[in-house]
Amino acid sequence: MEKIKRTDRLAVLSTLLTKNPNVLFSLTNLVEITGAAKSTISEDLAIIKEVLVQFSLGELISIAGAAGGVKYQPVQYSDTTLSFLQELAGFLSVPERIIPGGFVYMTDIIYDPKIVCRIGEIFYTRFKDTHPDYIVTMETKGIPPALMTAQAFSVPLIIIRDASRVTEGSSVSINYISGSTRRIQTMSLSRRALPGGSRVLIIDDFMKGGGTAKGMQELMEEFNAPVIGTGVVVATREPCEKLVQNYYSLLELIAIDELHKEIIIEPAGNKKQ
Amino acid sequence: MEKIKRTDRLAVLSTLLTKNPNVLFSLTNLVEITGAAKSTISEDLAIIKEVLVQFSLGELISIAGAAGGVKYQPVQYSDTTLSFLQELAGFLSVPERIIPGGFVYMTDIIYDPKIVCRIGEIFYTRFKDTHPDYIVTMETKGIPPALMTAQAFSVPLIIIRDASRVTEGSSVSINYISGSTRRIQTMSLSRRALPGGSRVLIIDDFMKGGGTAKGMQELMEEFNAPVIGTGVVVATREPCEKLVQNYYSLLELIAIDELHKEIIIEPAGNKKQ
Repeated sequence: MEKIKRTDRLAVLSTLLTKNPNVLFSLTNLVEITGAAKSTISEDLAIIKEVLVQFSLGELISIAGAAGGVKYQPVQYSDTTLSFLQELAGFLSVPERIIPGGFVYMTDIIYDPKIVCRIGEIFYTRFKDTHPDYIVTMETKGIPPALMTAQAFSVPLIIIRDASRVTEGSSVSINYISGSTRRIQTMSLSRRALPGGSRVLIIDDFMKGGGTAKGMQELMEEFNAPVIGTGVVVATREPCEKLVQNYYSLLELIAIDELHKEIIIEPAGNKKQ
Repeated sequence: MEKIKRTDRLAVLSTLLTKNPNVLFSLTNLVEITGAAKSTISEDLAIIKEVLVQFSLGELISIAGAAGGVKYQPVQYSDTTLSFLQELAGFLSVPERIIPGGFVYMTDIIYDPKIVCRIGEIFYTRFKDTHPDYIVTMETKGIPPALMTAQAFSVPLIIIRDASRVTEGSSVSINYISGSTRRIQTMSLSRRALPGGSRVLIIDDFMKGGGTAKGMQELMEEFNAPVIGTGVVVATREPCEKLVQNYYSLLELIAIDELHKEIIIEPAGNKKQ
């Protein structure tokens, strides 16, 4: 590899690192890519590190030692997170979004890659010190925020199915009572999907009674997989007592009134955590 | 905004652009962010543009005029794409992945954010000149590759459900015959999910008979939404005559033999397109 200029190196290194969140690049690896000396690359990384923080674009983390290197962490900052959640809450708090049964139409938000990528990075920021091995969700609407969280962590996603499927081999199934529908339902996960003992972070789109989240926790027990956190995009204020404790929600559905066409959603206070 | 140095600007601009694929940044916008003059930023962008191509990291596209600006296109290059697909094919071509019924266990691949992000960028590269307004998929396993394709295009994802759900309001449903199970099934999509006349790109994980893809095409007709392409991660060689024409697949399942525990998957030739 022929040597390239510092300006070129800064563009390459910034792109390479931010395109691969939480992927560790060794200095030796970066030497091979850019043709520069380790000391020169260290100077480049110091520049990138400082400027990313200055522009609230994330953090570079250096890991010392033989197995060390540098990786990009897509952290979100508290001030920009709050304004983003306020904007999202305002966007959702319109009567047209009320769906019979006390639900909120929010698939357009959850299926927008730019919004859901941001949501994934907010979950990442909240849970990054818990070091999950897998992100777990239940099909279907939990998948986009969970996948984006998995991308931010650079760990695999696990999708729990609502019935066992022919294409996934033998599976473990449990019954659970959905807190919102009050009906007994089945969730199942392929035996080979999750190695026993893995640390999992549960991510879902919506929590009302908490029955689905509790079911996921119980299913994880069948795999001897400790749940190190639970994050949801929207949780309802009522019922106050949910079937799971210690969840983190981005938004709170304060009130929804089909008759008077009123809906109030706000950034969550998360007093429970 | 105080002025910052060129090295700092290159790090900021590279990060900002590559973190937001296909999002247009106006020069005025970049002037506000960096405090530099338009001419200076144009020089920076020229450096980034050249170096991205040199390192196969994507492309910067400048759009002239009052509504113009610059955006990052996460294109994948044919040589690295082929080696990636060969690696993926090798990883999938192991007897342990054979599931009764002639299926392949591939959820670990499809749920790995790094792999599926790459898959999304390959679909983007193949279909970028067709300018879809939406990426459409059918739950569940199609969602990760479809979401990553949507992220590369910076357009919303639409998920067709396998039954109408309480939380999505009124919906349009159609029956279709799944080519693999030969059973009549139902797929449905919320009326408000897709504006009429939208151009859609269909992305799915697996195609055997093509029944699901055909069903999606027919459902799109109900929304007067032209299908501008169909991409799948794996298509089977047999049956050769599928229910849809003109699909693009990344990998081809050449042969699968449960009895002799043989499975052959290769990068697809795509003679049909």
